[in-house]
Amino acid sequence: MKIIILIHCPDQKGIISSVTGFIQNHSGNIVYLDQHVDKSANVFFMRLESDFENVDLELLEKNFNTELADKYAMQWSLHTDSKKPKMAIFVSKYNHCLYDLLSRFNSGELPVEIPFILSNHPDLKYVADQFDIPYHYIPFNKENRAECEKKQIALLKEYEVDFIVLARYMQIVSGNLINLYPDKIINIHHSFLPAFAGAKPYHAAFERGVKIIGATSHYVTEELDAGPIIEQDVTPVSHIHSISDFINKGRDLEKIVLSRAVKLHVHRKTMVYNNKTVIFS
Amino acid sequence: MKIIILIHCPDQKGIISSVTGFIQNHSGNIVYLDQHVDKSANVFFMRLESDFENVDLELLEKNFNTELADKYAMQWSLHTDSKKPKMAIFVSKYNHCLYDLLSRFNSGELPVEIPFILSNHPDLKYVADQFDIPYHYIPFNKENRAECEKKQIALLKEYEVDFIVLARYMQIVSGNLINLYPDKIINIHHSFLPAFAGAKPYHAAFERGVKIIGATSHYVTEELDAGPIIEQDVTPVSHIHSISDFINKGRDLEKIVLSRAVKLHVHRKTMVYNNKTVIFS
Amino acid sequence: MKIIILIHCPDQKGIISSVTGFIQNHSGNIVYLDQHVDKSANVFFMRLESDFENVDLELLEKNFNTELADKYAMQWSLHTDSKKPKMAIFVSKYNHCLYDLLSRFNSGELPVEIPFILSNHPDLKYVADQFDIPYHYIPFNKENRAECEKKQIALLKEYEVDFIVLARYMQIVSGNLINLYPDKIINIHHSFLPAFAGAKPYHAAFERGVKIIGATSHYVTEELDAGPIIEQDVTPVSHIHSISDFINKGRDLEKIVLSRAVKLHVHRKTMVYNNKTVIFS
Amino acid sequence: MKIIILIHCPDQKGIISSVTGFIQNHSGNIVYLDQHVDKSANVFFMRLESDFENVDLELLEKNFNTELADKYAMQWSLHTDSKKPKMAIFVSKYNHCLYDLLSRFNSGELPVEIPFILSNHPDLKYVADQFDIPYHYIPFNKENRAECEKKQIALLKEYEVDFIVLARYMQIVSGNLINLYPDKIINIHHSFLPAFAGAKPYHAAFERGVKIIGATSHYVTEELDAGPIIEQDVTPVSHIHSISDFINKGRDLEKIVLSRAVKLHVHRKTMVYNNKTVIFS
Repeated sequence: MKIIILIHCPDQKGIISSVTGFIQNHSGNIVYLDQHVDKSANVFFMRLESDFENVDLELLEKNFNTELADKYAMQWSLHTDSKKPKMAIFVSKYNHCLYDLLSRFNSGELPVEIPFILSNHPDLKYVADQFDIPYHYIPFNKENRAECEKKQIALLKEYEVDFIVLARYMQIVSGNLINLYPDKIINIHHSFLPAFAGAKPYHAAFERGVKIIGATSHYVTEELDAGPIIEQDVTPVSHIHSISDFINKGRDLEKIVLSRAVKLHVHRKTMVYNNKTVIFS
Repeated sequence: MKIIILIHCPDQKGIISSVTGFIQNHSGNIVYLDQHVDKSANVFFMRLESDFENVDLELLEKNFNTELADKYAMQWSLHTDSKKPKMAIFVSKYNHCLYDLLSRFNSGELPVEIPFILSNHPDLKYVADQFDIPYHYIPFNKENRAECEKKQIALLKEYEVDFIVLARYMQIVSGNLINLYPDKIINIHHSFLPAFAGAKPYHAAFERGVKIIGATSHYVTEELDAGPIIEQDVTPVSHIHSISDFINKGRDLEKIVLSRAVKLHVHRKTMVYNNKTVIFS
Repeated sequence: MKIIILIHCPDQKGIISSVTGFIQNHSGNIVYLDQHVDKSANVFFMRLESDFENVDLELLEKNFNTELADKYAMQWSLHTDSKKPKMAIFVSKYNHCLYDLLSRFNSGELPVEIPFILSNHPDLKYVADQFDIPYHYIPFNKENRAECEKKQIALLKEYEVDFIVLARYMQIVSGNLINLYPDKIINIHHSFLPAFAGAKPYHAAFERGVKIIGATSHYVTEELDAGPIIEQDVTPVSHIHSISDFINKGRDLEKIVLSRAVKLHVHRKTMVYNNKTVIFS
Repeated sequence: MKIIILIHCPDQKGIISSVTGFIQNHSGNIVYLDQHVDKSANVFFMRLESDFENVDLELLEKNFNTELADKYAMQWSLHTDSKKPKMAIFVSKYNHCLYDLLSRFNSGELPVEIPFILSNHPDLKYVADQFDIPYHYIPFNKENRAECEKKQIALLKEYEVDFIVLARYMQIVSGNLINLYPDKIINIHHSFLPAFAGAKPYHAAFERGVKIIGATSHYVTEELDAGPIIEQDVTPVSHIHSISDFINKGRDLEKIVLSRAVKLHVHRKTMVYNNKTVIFS
């Protein structure tokens, strides 16, 4: 059985040898170890991939707590590859990110289940139909927003969704939902944040006359477009490009950057602290 | 004789054929023609490189005004390769951009004259000495800033400086100087503007947890770090990089981006309007 | 009516003004002019986008030949936006490029018609079905290859296909087909050509220990992977990446690079000479 | 005292915990651990940065051999920061890489000593003079090549040179010299290897019509331009660029890529096996 352990704690002497010794004592074989110390914050991070035969998971967790977590004040989590995470996709009217995610899903590139796609518009139902995935159309306006969110949350609970991908959802997600899915809602913003946060970033980039545009995937927090950045990429532009050229070029960035972020999340390669990420590539 | 003509005017029918006909009627041979229309602003831009034998420059300019510029309400300028432009370099304490400019100058890569290097610190005099270029050390503080600027301007006039490069000058340039050199002062800012304008951009980028850092070269205007962007470039970073890693990686970006911008300016490949640039590559 | 004219001919004086004058005399308005001279080959290239009202196309072509093409020994072509080009897609077993093309097609990003998808494998029929596009499965082996090619050519003629996209087709195209579609068959090769031409480029790249992998889209010629390059892009790799990581990362390059090349071709922004391309962006 | 240990050996269970335990038992504190397994070759790699107070280096090395290296069949090396490595620079007539290295050296960015610069041409003596570094001019021709190499080797021995940087040296280095400095001669080649190995890569790239050019820094082996790649980078080009544009753009790549490779080598972040590198960033 493959086990991934993610750890962060105050930096101190001896953590690496204690953890690696623990794995060996429990007959695990370390396949990959990534470690990082943020010296300015004095925090230690570790991602450990190990192979175990016939492991008693419950006992392993108990011993880890007793022998390591308590001693080093660790926050930690353990993940196995026995169950695919459930990913809900929220969309609006743009289909490029959705198509990209679904075609990867179809190719086996994304080891997830997709219980449903959700939208406040009916426009992309045809894409969901193409891939035989349920499409929940929950329209809302200023008045019934809270009520609709309840429906969303009910769906997420019913399907035991593990994380949410906002594939150009274009709607602000409320604190209620964010608190239910901390560091588990992945958004794609169509600018190289922190430049051009908020609405119409391509228009703002065109106005400013930048020579490079970008896209940013980040975990959603209550402050708009200000959550921990998972992945960014950019592409050159010039005076010859109109706003609609920016939008076209940006689409290619958005879908690639979002898919990379989703893959990093699914493979447990992201850790969050201080509104930043550690990405173990 | 090689002649470069830069034109911009309201967009309208027939400009290209009128201008190219004019060149032909004056026995010029068009070597390169670059043209652009900003449809959102309805402005036409053109850069024309032509070869002329035995041309009467004065007559050419007079005819251009009569036959073309008046008719199309053109703003235009004519440049020959008979005289190298004079470039002053302003520095502070960082030597990487200065070394990069001077080594290119020494290799013949930059067709300019460098009458002097100017600084409010004595630190980089040794670099100027290495390359046998006069170094003017004009220290200043809050009290004598205006007076020192007068000295700067006197030097610029004395040496008939055509344009100024701020090679990590780290000082705010006053409106007086900017008005004397409109679209002729080139700065390098160590972020991908408009993100992280102002002081300590690498610290701010680290704090925000971006996955890409950048550098931006722009013409200086009165609003800090908000002038027309000439050139930008970026490089990936990750959680493993400290602020000092950002600074080190950034140095390589800064010097390359600044040198590219200086070359574009020297070869008359930049045009400015609406606080943006048209860059004819 | 929008008209695009592509010209190449030996470089000589006066071409630009003659052509732009011609357009004006025929009451056309030049919207965009791109021009290039390859000095080493002494060849002049031009792409001209013009707007015409009530133009007599036949007369325009006749006059162009008489007044310009004969005089300057031009090879030229004229394209209008009145008819969408017909694009056939040839595939094998990989679906990522096909999904990318079809989702762009569905979004209106690719102004083409897609009369059919063709393959020597049945594997991707489900994708064609998702998008309601006919799928022709023509299996072949060493013995019946020539015969199958006849079937392919019959289909291409029946549907009046204008150009062919090999979306990871993985088969060598014969000279017969290439001669029917000169500079009209677009391939994607999964390396930064000319490095790693031929089979299994990701394996070869891994073996060589490169730090960058790439993808190349090119027009197909009889020499394998040696045709005129339309578009290339790259992505960094490191020792941590296995061959299967290369393949995964490469997929994202392949689909983006191929789609960019297809768009350039569709918008008549490519010209071919000396086994190279001029790409008017 | 900071100690860096580099290890590679056949992959097997328990290595990480054994090594980290060893460091802890010797009162060292692990500051950074990087580890990699090449599964296709079944080789384990590790780079370990540790802090020690009052360590007996000789004893540490002896114990490492007894307790670890013998058991796991390790090849390993230990490096301290107590002595700066001595770097000789070989040049020909191009000054851009030399200027870049020396300006970084001058800024304290490269923690090395530079005992001398060596060339078969007198051209760059003025650069060496600018930076007060001895310049050895050893001209040679086909006849006296072997003799001259003896002089080179004598110099390298006299100054106890640790590694050699070929900063556009443009000469083939003999097997004698390579064997004296295995994985310790760093070259910069002006193409994205393996494309365009050998002479005149920019000419070949222009001829092929590529849309991207590159530079590659690698350790020198007896097969020309085929040694383990340390670092590569690329930049886009198009039909508008002439060979001399390629050369100009390439210069910026060459100097940045070479300097990055030199820094990686100096900081002991490179390991070589199977003609490839592991680069611990």
